[in-house]
Amino acid sequence: MTAPLVLSIDAMGGDDAPAAIIDGAAHFLKGRKRAVRYLFHGDAAQLEPLVAKHAGLGGVSEIRHTDGQVDMSAKPSEAVRRSRGSSMWNAVHAIKDGDAHVAVSAGNTGALMAISKVILRMKKGVHRPAIAASWPAPRGFSTVLDVGANVEVSPSQLVEFAVLGEAFHRAVHGAAHPTVGLLNVGQEELKGSQSIRDADALIREAELDMDYRGFVEGDDISSATTNVVVTDGFTGNIALKTAEGTARLVGGWLREALTGSLSGKIAAAILSLGALDRLRERMDPRSVNGGVFLGLNGVVVKSHGGTDALGFATSLRIALEMADSRFLSEIENNLARLSDMSDRAEAAQAEG
Amino acid sequence: MTAPLVLSIDAMGGDDAPAAIIDGAAHFLKGRKRAVRYLFHGDAAQLEPLVAKHAGLGGVSEIRHTDGQVDMSAKPSEAVRRSRGSSMWNAVHAIKDGDAHVAVSAGNTGALMAISKVILRMKKGVHRPAIAASWPAPRGFSTVLDVGANVEVSPSQLVEFAVLGEAFHRAVHGAAHPTVGLLNVGQEELKGSQSIRDADALIREAELDMDYRGFVEGDDISSATTNVVVTDGFTGNIALKTAEGTARLVGGWLREALTGSLSGKIAAAILSLGALDRLRERMDPRSVNGGVFLGLNGVVVKSHGGTDALGFATSLRIALEMADSRFLSEIENNLARLSDMSDRAEAAQAEG
Repeated sequence: MTAPLVLSIDAMGGDDAPAAIIDGAAHFLKGRKRAVRYLFHGDAAQLEPLVAKHAGLGGVSEIRHTDGQVDMSAKPSEAVRRSRGSSMWNAVHAIKDGDAHVAVSAGNTGALMAISKVILRMKKGVHRPAIAASWPAPRGFSTVLDVGANVEVSPSQLVEFAVLGEAFHRAVHGAAHPTVGLLNVGQEELKGSQSIRDADALIREAELDMDYRGFVEGDDISSATTNVVVTDGFTGNIALKTAEGTARLVGGWLREALTGSLSGKIAAAILSLGALDRLRERMDPRSVNGGVFLGLNGVVVKSHGGTDALGFATSLRIALEMADSRFLSEIENNLARLSDMSDRAEAAQAEG
Repeated sequence: MTAPLVLSIDAMGGDDAPAAIIDGAAHFLKGRKRAVRYLFHGDAAQLEPLVAKHAGLGGVSEIRHTDGQVDMSAKPSEAVRRSRGSSMWNAVHAIKDGDAHVAVSAGNTGALMAISKVILRMKKGVHRPAIAASWPAPRGFSTVLDVGANVEVSPSQLVEFAVLGEAFHRAVHGAAHPTVGLLNVGQEELKGSQSIRDADALIREAELDMDYRGFVEGDDISSATTNVVVTDGFTGNIALKTAEGTARLVGGWLREALTGSLSGKIAAAILSLGALDRLRERMDPRSVNGGVFLGLNGVVVKSHGGTDALGFATSLRIALEMADSRFLSEIENNLARLSDMSDRAEAAQAEG
């Protein structure tokens, strides 16, 4: 029997915490074969009755009391200084202490990033972590990064993101040789900023043993033209939220089509016996809720701040997949290649 | 009776030109009450038989022969130097000559922009034109700009885009006081680049008599949190294409749901009598195909390069709506406010 995976959970992070968090954890247990255990960090007085509500949850859970929690609007630097001993801090620290395999929080993104960097440290060769999102594609998923950790990035950081994202995709989505693209605008005459063109040149020159396909456009993400799409955190965040908004809009239209007329209602009644539920699930942004921080010595998953229980359960699934995957070793392999590249670049500079 | 509106059309621009262009123009005539006339610019030997194919098209069309056409991959500067007398050049020039009310092309975006600037000139107070897209919203449309003309913009250009976009939305989508937002990432701690924060401050300080609501996020575009969403051409282009890709992906899922099982097929058969066609139309990126160049002395509409006849007909509808609207006078009014702002800023600088 496989030993249970331990998920360390910031039970106080998120707009509807702690109720949505505990309910999500309970929901995630249902029908699960892989054994999991939870470490909940937060206010024990609030958490105990919530855990007790769900049959079977108490038996796999440990509540570790904390007094403090990180404010949703706290600045990252502030959070690092003031959050020691908070639910978020302790959730991440449990990984470092070897008490848990992966940490999950729906709290303040910037604070979680800053705290994770301080506690877990960056992997050698990575300068800033990136947030990777698994993006629905015609078959399976694409990987998009960065979706919000870094508003402004240098060309060499985009190269790091390519390396991190390729390892993530191979480990989590199972492609042996993921293809990688750099997000850009398409017209020949508007080939993006200098920074993107420089990143393209850097990746090509780096001899990373990566299946790099050059520039891709916004519509290539959903069509999975490449498995991995690399971009800065500003563009990636806007692309992700735009896609969520579009899915929601189209979902509203579909609801109208299925409820606005008698024929629609009849069709919906027939469909709901079959494929409509699957369609609804696919279109639900909650079914892809969970950004993974890449580049740290450990796995941290960020759930949407506004998540409900169902969305949080998705983040736990993603965390489980990450912990069960060869992700950290894939990253090590990729980073070794990146560090070869830096060594070569330095050697070339020393010669030049 | 209203005099016919004259649409000046680059019949040679676009991947499937001239057939898709002429077919689209013929499609657009069907069931139309407003009288229109076409000026087709292009190779007469190719255009004449295409026009003759459609009953009723020849009677409202004039073919103006051109020998040259702008290459889809030509650089803008090159295009301006070498394209005099091309179908694109002449299509735009017909507006300046007073022969047509609006010009439409599915050709090279950068070249069309450069040619339009040279022939029509920018309006006083505008430094660069922007491309505005009408974006499907729960009710009606949002306006998003820039969706591809300017990869890098300054904060003051974003202010100009706000002014242009607000006038466009009022004229074309009929809101008396459109609300305006600036596209950004949401987390408190990652409030976008300095350039976006500067633009936000500039708009607030400018006293533009505009209903400016501050920052919006990617998912606010489709939910129409504000009527107008302002961004740079890099981010806007990626957001637009990401939304198109998402709509296409969800459309594919819907097709699967409606054809993958017997119940799905029955539901589709019932639905197609009712609301499915409307849903399909709403989800079809071709139904919103047409970016409008704002900031020029004249109206130029850009269709997707890869457009088919149906998509090109949409661009003609957008061109007609623009020509019939109070757009140019709304822009004049807004620009007067912008120029007041510049005058005040200069006066303040002189004092300071």
